[in-house]
Amino acid sequence: MIRLGISGYGNLGRGVEAAVMHNPDFQLKVILTRRDPASIKPLTKGVKVDKTENAKAYKDEIDVLILCGGSATDLPVQTPAYAADFNVVDSFDTHANIPAHFDAVDKAAKESGKLALISCGWDPGMFSIARVYGDSVLPGGATYTFWGKGVSQGHSDAIRRVKGVVDARQYTVPVQAALDAVRSGSNPDLSTRQKHTRECYVVVEEGADKARIEKEIKEMPNYFADYDTTVNFISQEELDSKHKGIPHGGFVIRSGKTGANDEYDNVVEYSLKLDSNPAFTSSVLVAYARAVAKMSKEGRTGCVTVLDVPPAYLSAKSGAELRKSML
Amino acid sequence: MIRLGISGYGNLGRGVEAAVMHNPDFQLKVILTRRDPASIKPLTKGVKVDKTENAKAYKDEIDVLILCGGSATDLPVQTPAYAADFNVVDSFDTHANIPAHFDAVDKAAKESGKLALISCGWDPGMFSIARVYGDSVLPGGATYTFWGKGVSQGHSDAIRRVKGVVDARQYTVPVQAALDAVRSGSNPDLSTRQKHTRECYVVVEEGADKARIEKEIKEMPNYFADYDTTVNFISQEELDSKHKGIPHGGFVIRSGKTGANDEYDNVVEYSLKLDSNPAFTSSVLVAYARAVAKMSKEGRTGCVTVLDVPPAYLSAKSGAELRKSML
Repeated sequence: MIRLGISGYGNLGRGVEAAVMHNPDFQLKVILTRRDPASIKPLTKGVKVDKTENAKAYKDEIDVLILCGGSATDLPVQTPAYAADFNVVDSFDTHANIPAHFDAVDKAAKESGKLALISCGWDPGMFSIARVYGDSVLPGGATYTFWGKGVSQGHSDAIRRVKGVVDARQYTVPVQAALDAVRSGSNPDLSTRQKHTRECYVVVEEGADKARIEKEIKEMPNYFADYDTTVNFISQEELDSKHKGIPHGGFVIRSGKTGANDEYDNVVEYSLKLDSNPAFTSSVLVAYARAVAKMSKEGRTGCVTVLDVPPAYLSAKSGAELRKSML
Repeated sequence: MIRLGISGYGNLGRGVEAAVMHNPDFQLKVILTRRDPASIKPLTKGVKVDKTENAKAYKDEIDVLILCGGSATDLPVQTPAYAADFNVVDSFDTHANIPAHFDAVDKAAKESGKLALISCGWDPGMFSIARVYGDSVLPGGATYTFWGKGVSQGHSDAIRRVKGVVDARQYTVPVQAALDAVRSGSNPDLSTRQKHTRECYVVVEEGADKARIEKEIKEMPNYFADYDTTVNFISQEELDSKHKGIPHGGFVIRSGKTGANDEYDNVVEYSLKLDSNPAFTSSVLVAYARAVAKMSKEGRTGCVTVLDVPPAYLSAKSGAELRKSML
């Protein structure tokens, strides 16, 4: 049994708890929270709930701690700190800051003799793996990543900050013509606008100036200005009934040529279609917690990513069983 | 530079030579053949061609030897034998015999202190990886593998053995309705007949009894009896002009549920579309030869498969570069 801890009990932490139920080789021992532990009602029988500051007390009780905080402010501090006492897995997803985060976590985990796996989930995560495999088996080609159709929390939040907006949900949608062009193997150059559109569902205050709100959204730099954006004004009831889920997914497509004269086209595609973004991310985190438990037992220390983990380490099945049934 | 040898110069061996041209960190040193070396005209300048029996002479000149023989009779003998002197990679693809082949190769490679990677390519190979990742990140779901549209050499050969047949090409074709059902996440039970159809293009002798030939093909046990098979009689000219390629590909689809109450559906799909089956297989072999060179340098010995290799080991890029650009 792998003894697991969860730090942070939001969407992701609850998702990890649910994912443990699908993985009978795990036992959830403790949930650490910044809230009042008495306010947390875990789904798992017998699991302890404690304050984050008491984490050290569980040092010898858990094999891996999954960190379910946010990438903006939580994980840059928490992951190196927890790596002093625990093997940890996090889902740090600010791509540009991954090298710095890796270095900080690596230093902490090497000093403590623990193992830390960062930036786990689906992007970064399973999509990163697809990009590296594609780049390696088809050198000299091109890799394309498309996201969606799915909810972008960051873009939804950005809309909510527009004056007069009560609530909003934003979907990132890959452009079918771009997907088709990439799949044809023609290695097209695609602008930001050509790859994705943005669909917004917006609830506004009574009497709000919809034309002004629509214009502000569509012209918002970084978030919407570079995209073809559609804004749909709907009621709070419609938002709650039709847009309450957090589905996501996407595509990593690698095209490249083989043959002595580049005479053969090849297209490799990896795609995800997820009803719940955090539930799937959590499921990936648990599989990598298994890998971290195995690698730590073998003496591996410091920081690693999904790119450093052999596929077999994610599985509860033995090497012999995998070779017999899945190779 | 990774110094490479090729044993066997058929479709696969020539494919490996072409793949080396796309991977500038490799140097092809020698091609070993059972034919008269003088009859071989390699594309690579300066590469030696020698008889298979002289292999030992190159023991210290190459880092990895890629074995391009067949799975039926060549590799069961060659892979353990070569593993006594070389780090090797093979594409052994008789799924049922993989465990026995693994054990024989593991014993030989452990004794010699060399590293052997077996069953590399796309199935077994990249598809096996997709199956293990899918099974691990979505436990409790179902995995489906579809092949095609592509040429099955074994089935084409089987048709050629029918009396009156001059030449033949057989395509394995996934059934669209089955693909759609699997992608919907409904975890359907699918019979052999429901998953694939078989399309045959057949050239017959003048005056041959086409009705008898068609019946014999369609009723052939193991090969065609369990499938909906179509037989098209065409001229040798048409076969040569329209069906001379060896394209292939396929799909590995994993569907599974997440959430505490299995309330979310998820579908993960990995697919390949290949103009040339052996050219892509060769490209994968070279990427794994890179991994074998790295792992051998680290002291790893014995037999491994693609399931034991971290994605980063396939890449010519450094860990830091991959984290920065692909994670």
